[in-house]
Amino acid sequence: MYSFACDYLEGCHTEVLKALCETNMEQAPGYGADRFTKTATEEIREACGDPAASVYFVNGGTQTNQLIIDTTLEAYEGVLAARTGHVSVHEAGAIEFCGHKVLTLPAHEGKVDAADVKEYVKKFYDDSSHEHMVFPGMVYISHPSEYGTIYSARELTELSRVCRENHLKLFLDGARLGYGLEADGADVTLSLIARLCDVFYIGGTKVGALNGEAIVFPEGKEPSHFLTRIKQHGALSAKGRLAGVQFAALFKDNLYRRISRHAIEMAGEIRDIFEDAGCRFYINSPTNQQFVILENDVLKELGEYVGYDIWEKYDENHTVVRFASSWATTQEGIEELRHAMNKCIKSRK
Amino acid sequence: MYSFACDYLEGCHTEVLKALCETNMEQAPGYGADRFTKTATEEIREACGDPAASVYFVNGGTQTNQLIIDTTLEAYEGVLAARTGHVSVHEAGAIEFCGHKVLTLPAHEGKVDAADVKEYVKKFYDDSSHEHMVFPGMVYISHPSEYGTIYSARELTELSRVCRENHLKLFLDGARLGYGLEADGADVTLSLIARLCDVFYIGGTKVGALNGEAIVFPEGKEPSHFLTRIKQHGALSAKGRLAGVQFAALFKDNLYRRISRHAIEMAGEIRDIFEDAGCRFYINSPTNQQFVILENDVLKELGEYVGYDIWEKYDENHTVVRFASSWATTQEGIEELRHAMNKCIKSRK
Amino acid sequence: MYSFACDYLEGCHTEVLKALCETNMEQAPGYGADRFTKTATEEIREACGDPAASVYFVNGGTQTNQLIIDTTLEAYEGVLAARTGHVSVHEAGAIEFCGHKVLTLPAHEGKVDAADVKEYVKKFYDDSSHEHMVFPGMVYISHPSEYGTIYSARELTELSRVCRENHLKLFLDGARLGYGLEADGADVTLSLIARLCDVFYIGGTKVGALNGEAIVFPEGKEPSHFLTRIKQHGALSAKGRLAGVQFAALFKDNLYRRISRHAIEMAGEIRDIFEDAGCRFYINSPTNQQFVILENDVLKELGEYVGYDIWEKYDENHTVVRFASSWATTQEGIEELRHAMNKCIKSRK
Amino acid sequence: MYSFACDYLEGCHTEVLKALCETNMEQAPGYGADRFTKTATEEIREACGDPAASVYFVNGGTQTNQLIIDTTLEAYEGVLAARTGHVSVHEAGAIEFCGHKVLTLPAHEGKVDAADVKEYVKKFYDDSSHEHMVFPGMVYISHPSEYGTIYSARELTELSRVCRENHLKLFLDGARLGYGLEADGADVTLSLIARLCDVFYIGGTKVGALNGEAIVFPEGKEPSHFLTRIKQHGALSAKGRLAGVQFAALFKDNLYRRISRHAIEMAGEIRDIFEDAGCRFYINSPTNQQFVILENDVLKELGEYVGYDIWEKYDENHTVVRFASSWATTQEGIEELRHAMNKCIKSRK
Repeated sequence: MYSFACDYLEGCHTEVLKALCETNMEQAPGYGADRFTKTATEEIREACGDPAASVYFVNGGTQTNQLIIDTTLEAYEGVLAARTGHVSVHEAGAIEFCGHKVLTLPAHEGKVDAADVKEYVKKFYDDSSHEHMVFPGMVYISHPSEYGTIYSARELTELSRVCRENHLKLFLDGARLGYGLEADGADVTLSLIARLCDVFYIGGTKVGALNGEAIVFPEGKEPSHFLTRIKQHGALSAKGRLAGVQFAALFKDNLYRRISRHAIEMAGEIRDIFEDAGCRFYINSPTNQQFVILENDVLKELGEYVGYDIWEKYDENHTVVRFASSWATTQEGIEELRHAMNKCIKSRK
Repeated sequence: MYSFACDYLEGCHTEVLKALCETNMEQAPGYGADRFTKTATEEIREACGDPAASVYFVNGGTQTNQLIIDTTLEAYEGVLAARTGHVSVHEAGAIEFCGHKVLTLPAHEGKVDAADVKEYVKKFYDDSSHEHMVFPGMVYISHPSEYGTIYSARELTELSRVCRENHLKLFLDGARLGYGLEADGADVTLSLIARLCDVFYIGGTKVGALNGEAIVFPEGKEPSHFLTRIKQHGALSAKGRLAGVQFAALFKDNLYRRISRHAIEMAGEIRDIFEDAGCRFYINSPTNQQFVILENDVLKELGEYVGYDIWEKYDENHTVVRFASSWATTQEGIEELRHAMNKCIKSRK
Repeated sequence: MYSFACDYLEGCHTEVLKALCETNMEQAPGYGADRFTKTATEEIREACGDPAASVYFVNGGTQTNQLIIDTTLEAYEGVLAARTGHVSVHEAGAIEFCGHKVLTLPAHEGKVDAADVKEYVKKFYDDSSHEHMVFPGMVYISHPSEYGTIYSARELTELSRVCRENHLKLFLDGARLGYGLEADGADVTLSLIARLCDVFYIGGTKVGALNGEAIVFPEGKEPSHFLTRIKQHGALSAKGRLAGVQFAALFKDNLYRRISRHAIEMAGEIRDIFEDAGCRFYINSPTNQQFVILENDVLKELGEYVGYDIWEKYDENHTVVRFASSWATTQEGIEELRHAMNKCIKSRK
Repeated sequence: MYSFACDYLEGCHTEVLKALCETNMEQAPGYGADRFTKTATEEIREACGDPAASVYFVNGGTQTNQLIIDTTLEAYEGVLAARTGHVSVHEAGAIEFCGHKVLTLPAHEGKVDAADVKEYVKKFYDDSSHEHMVFPGMVYISHPSEYGTIYSARELTELSRVCRENHLKLFLDGARLGYGLEADGADVTLSLIARLCDVFYIGGTKVGALNGEAIVFPEGKEPSHFLTRIKQHGALSAKGRLAGVQFAALFKDNLYRRISRHAIEMAGEIRDIFEDAGCRFYINSPTNQQFVILENDVLKELGEYVGYDIWEKYDENHTVVRFASSWATTQEGIEELRHAMNKCIKSRK
């Protein structure tokens, strides 16, 4: 049974696997000093248009968020995030584990609004007891967000402006960054992100790699002794080559963007299938995650044919369901979904 | 130039790579719920003779030590470790980062002595101000140790006895466990470890895998909500399959032990080469790491032909050098070392 | 100029000061082993109707909250608190500093509703991804709350029931406990609290002492090695006598309740003054803190005669202002307020 | 029975108590904004010869050490301290609780040697794997040390020089600072300390106050948002006046130094008593703590007449015993000790 439950169901892209096989027995030094990591670093710097950016590779998303937030904030600062942000809800308190509070902002379809940031900061400093409170030190955004939405270049620029005016760092969680860059209508690029953010990461786990995320600090933004901080967080890999080889493959000949674009196109087909079936969408997502409102009966029947992810209850008779495409989604999978949905419609009549 | 600098220079064993390739496009659920992880878990349970053991997979050694120590100790407890133990020196304070003190014991060629543990505990409780001190709560040992030495079954049994009598947990860091199990004269087995320890891990990164360590809690020893604790530590992989596939391959048909035995045999050849050359050894290691005392001039010349790891200064004219074999060491590599050493000897005459 | 800005403006009650003077040169052992601390402990046990309760004394409120929450929660748990709770907002992240998340609940005039707790827990366990979230482990309430409101015996009993049914600890922050116990209409007693809560503290700093809070763990509820945990938190006083002498005086002959009752009566007079002046109240508080809605012009003029605390903006022309009475409030102070308010009314006409 | 067990047996000095009584009912704002704290701050600045020093008051020694070390170190740094230092042994892991490792140095009668610091740093940076280790970021010394010894001006200057050359902060724990400043032969002054250290504290708890320690950051050395950090540590007192009044009294008319000198003179008498009795000293302490080697039989008999503190076993027949004088030691107490010792000598004959 084909599954659309999430975007980390398969191993890695063929090109990535090929690179792993080809380099497998080459001896390489540990802890990121290998030549693959150097290549990957150079490719990412070029893709970001920042030849002096610092690039580090770690294993997963929560680890990355925890590491970046902890090393970028001052000890008396917390991180501003949408109430629905991954760091707010779904990281088992990984941010608090490092001593920092997550300060929640309203979520606008998963996104943070610059005006809300501005208002939060104003209210904070206007409060005469703010020295007894957690200082806002950073804004965390995910792009695409947990709801598949993306920032426009204008929105991101405005957020960055408000952050800089208020001495807040801006951190972009790019666990699914490829799908945001390649979304229809997207005008945010890697180099714009590198210009506007203080730190961000380029997700590998969900975009073609077996594992791994690339942390990018634009020129001059790297915290001191960052390698030691990675080690202290338990996040430094002895075989740095594993991430190095994979990211070198992903950033060679635009593979990362090409496979991301594939996912967007597959998501378009998913959207069409549900639109054709007369279903409503919970959110208008231009990226690889589609949130469909399904009748509970349809949902149940559909579950006999394809995999999906229950997102949340919509009302007594409906449920919000997530269908995710990815770099790995096949046309055969899409057809299975189409047939399944057709069957459900027929049986409803 | 062939290198013996460490045991994590290559990717992964061919069988492991093959398994990764064969399963690559199979869809599998995340966070360790995949069938590969289930298989690996069953295989490890069987290898340990503990069908009810809890098995979890994480990415690297420091992460594992940090996670285990933090989740097993009470908040007011510290961990006893040899002064030379990895957690004492080379983890950038990862243990302290989680709030726990490393309490150091004398190191006997890298090993902890049961009598020292007993004495530490006695002295601690005899001290009338011990309520103002960090309680010893666990003993950390590495097997093999950082100096390549191993515990005998008698020594491990005695350590375990002293720990249990004194309400200390016993944790065995098995980053190189295969090389300890297969060392000449070794009488410690996986099932003995599972009977004597409260928790241990089976290293993959240094023994045939691209990355990954298997944490084993013998029956009844798993801390509550351990999955959530892994997540909180930033150590939970979305694609649990990566470790699952690798460990399933490593524990199929005794691969883990066979490739470890290979490393031991290669280490024997390394030892022979240096013995034949009349070199002394810093420590008598039966495992894959050999610590040779080399004249500085020899060392320099040798460095033109093969890679090694400078361990520490021995005296004005000599240096302790580490030569590590691994599952990946080739006979060709060994011959390069032999020729190189012969050249050095000749040029000395 | 007499001030009503808060309830910690003066030193300590005359009886407490007298006790400090009389015992000053008596030699006493450190760290709470002195006879004064023993007496205070016995008195508090008796007042709580729990002869086996554990009683510890620390210095201040935030310290107490931080210490109790950190030592009572499991590492994977967070604390539920009203959005307006002291631990949520005004402790500079002291709870997160120890690794725990504050999980916010709706605030009902500063109070937590049992139904909200129940719903939170249900929603949490119904969420299929709850293992990736912070487990609710405790409910924090303040009594009186930050808004001067108090729980009824029925409300507290219901909260306790919901907590016990859902394996949550219940912690009552009693920084101003005396004023809650002695409020008009209050039916919550110390012994009821001791029966219903897992831990609570009896505030000294705001109720007659120079400093100090008494932590009470009802029988069987003390965390293990709590003294060591206090030390580890930097909260153990060498001269435990300071708190011991003060609390022994406060709990002798009902002094704590008598001086609390005095504050309640003074608060009644404050309320009368503003009611007579036709002012509205922001909240109907039966305790020592009165929240009055004042016209900004009145507020400004009043500020020339007496001290108060600006709470928050009400609307363009009005401000919420706190007037606090305490054990120390004098009838002269009240008269100053009355005259000041009369002047303001006159000048308005 | 008169006790010499420690230097925190009594309440506070008469002048301090008088100041508390006289100011008791004066209304004063909270959190250190009161006029007493302002006066104390000015007096301490003057005593230190640093009109721009930052001065903060907290409650106890471990709290102070924890707060200073945590706020002064970078996250990847540890603190160097003598193996016998208070932070190394007797603070229940309070430093590690905040994430920092205590890096131990040899103790020379409780003191740290500049040459050892220099060697530690050299060895650290010479180690090619030092990025995987905890960086030394600060040197902690206690003056007087836990063994009653003091640094000479030359030693302290040398330590400061080595620290500055190696980018280490220098922190002086002055829990018993008065007794160090007034010791016979002492040439270290408050203003020298302020010139040579990055932060230090002036102990109140053991030198005339009920509680309280004054943290001093010389000009330009205060960490940013220090007040918020104090709050976050749970160390901010609502009634800052308590410390303010006491330290204002202690630093008025040189009271702090006069009462410290008294303790030194009393210690001289204690020393004479034991010297006259032919006892040996464990350490040659010029301060208020005297460490005497007593025969176990003598010790036992002496315990019937006066209080003391068992320090450690010396040999099978002897014990090291601490006799501490303080600002509170009375001539009557000294006479009791003299008579007691005489009785012991007689009964021995």
